[in-house]
Amino acid sequence: MAEPYYKYHVFFCTNVRDDGRPFCAAHGSMALRDYAKKKVKELGLAGRGQVRINTSGCLDRCEEGPVVVVYPKGVWYTYVDREDIDEIISEHLQHGRLVQRLLLPQ
Amino acid sequence: MAEPYYKYHVFFCTNVRDDGRPFCAAHGSMALRDYAKKKVKELGLAGRGQVRINTSGCLDRCEEGPVVVVYPKGVWYTYVDREDIDEIISEHLQHGRLVQRLLLPQ
Repeated sequence: MAEPYYKYHVFFCTNVRDDGRPFCAAHGSMALRDYAKKKVKELGLAGRGQVRINTSGCLDRCEEGPVVVVYPKGVWYTYVDREDIDEIISEHLQHGRLVQRLLLPQ
Repeated sequence: MAEPYYKYHVFFCTNVRDDGRPFCAAHGSMALRDYAKKKVKELGLAGRGQVRINTSGCLDRCEEGPVVVVYPKGVWYTYVDREDIDEIISEHLQHGRLVQRLLLPQ
């Protein structure tokens, strides 16, 4: 198979709910996605053949949120703060190593 | 590797732009994503281990849009109408066959 269009395509759930179920936006997912996008760009990692950081609608793992999924491998993480995002970027997106402490069940 | 959380995780770009660049929402991507989500549910394909239909922010292939990407394989399609969506669902999501006529460069 050819190289994927994006080596790492990262989707941050930024969904908002009002039905009583937890939702990722309540954990600051929008701001932390913006932080990730900016940092990836600053590091020169953004673009075709490299990394793309996206928002997404509800990924339906609300109770485990906030959640982010890294394709094409389909690696799921949770996170709390910028340090967690930094670690996902430096370990996973720059060096291809999983961040074990933030992994969700695959 | 374990089974992926979603066998087919489908992201419809539903981004809106006002900078003169084309954008997927201008091609009815939100309505066609809603149609896909409803149809996948009706067919009993939705859920863990099966299919998830999501919206996403800009996938940065605006000039080729509207675009949709199917992970974990990272198969990119464009589409025009419900018939195209029906074909992606029946061929790709139900039978694992690519819809050649709608493929974008991978």
